[in-house]
Amino acid sequence: MKKAEMDAYREQALAYFEQAGIVLTDAEKDAVEVTDYDLGHFEDIGLFLLTYFNTGRCSARELVLLPNQACPEHFHPPFNDQAGDNPGKEETFRCRMGKVYLYVDGEPTPAPKCAPPDFHREYFNVGHEIELCPGDQYTLYPGTKHWFRAGPEGAIVSEFSSRIKDDADVFSDPALTRFSTIEE
Amino acid sequence: MKKAEMDAYREQALAYFEQAGIVLTDAEKDAVEVTDYDLGHFEDIGLFLLTYFNTGRCSARELVLLPNQACPEHFHPPFNDQAGDNPGKEETFRCRMGKVYLYVDGEPTPAPKCAPPDFHREYFNVGHEIELCPGDQYTLYPGTKHWFRAGPEGAIVSEFSSRIKDDADVFSDPALTRFSTIEE
Repeated sequence: MKKAEMDAYREQALAYFEQAGIVLTDAEKDAVEVTDYDLGHFEDIGLFLLTYFNTGRCSARELVLLPNQACPEHFHPPFNDQAGDNPGKEETFRCRMGKVYLYVDGEPTPAPKCAPPDFHREYFNVGHEIELCPGDQYTLYPGTKHWFRAGPEGAIVSEFSSRIKDDADVFSDPALTRFSTIEE
Repeated sequence: MKKAEMDAYREQALAYFEQAGIVLTDAEKDAVEVTDYDLGHFEDIGLFLLTYFNTGRCSARELVLLPNQACPEHFHPPFNDQAGDNPGKEETFRCRMGKVYLYVDGEPTPAPKCAPPDFHREYFNVGHEIELCPGDQYTLYPGTKHWFRAGPEGAIVSEFSSRIKDDADVFSDPALTRFSTIEE
């Protein structure tokens, strides 16, 4: 994604934070990450992430989604690095603003309220639906395949988790990467 | 504390959440814990706690403090239970609304902006000051002695942590307990 485009999108995310009354430092505002997963269709598949901290044991971040924007299907595998063996990331999503539809491994919901994006639809396969309105939360344990998509007003989701190691995430779509290449 | 008094205080905490735009479910509103640490001086030493979740690995909660209210000095020791050895609770405090003065082990701050409450003052001893305004955060590792006190407008603090085990906490004041006895 071009840097100017990324900066413009970041301003949209900052407006969401302001609307929700979530106060960020100036350094955090600059650090809001914009990722299109290098697919080039940010408004279909993309995410804003702001990581508050990430120690060896736990982490917290805020996620922002534009209207109908989707985070692609993935799961968090066990990993092993200098900090030792880790069973994989456990994460609890708590909706703060807007609405988010979360899909996880399990019995597909017969009449889901939302659907995958058309773009790269074939890589959105798990279909057990959890609807998260503000105040609702759901805990995902390591290895649970999941994807999520905002409702028509976008969403802010707090993510409380064990240690984040995003480069360990396993995505269903072989074309994407977790990060976005920044072009000048 | 008498149940009626506790319920009235809880309404004050709910007003803080509403002011900050933090949406809670009805079940969470009912579950907001009011503790005076059984000292009977809630407005001097006391805290509201709402635990969002607490798995074996991580936890998140919101803390609310009334104006000038203090959480007593304590630290989080290692513990060992059915889930295995735990090095003790690690917690990150992030101020959401108001202001909180956090005091930790270390070089005492020469001219601190806040002071311990008069009541049971002798049990507030660590004096390295960290001032947390909305958007500011600080991570406490296990074993770090700490206490904190709200500024004159009260405060909301998000606590992101490893697994919570409040009954393991070690308080400096031998007269108090972590929980509040509810009287009819």
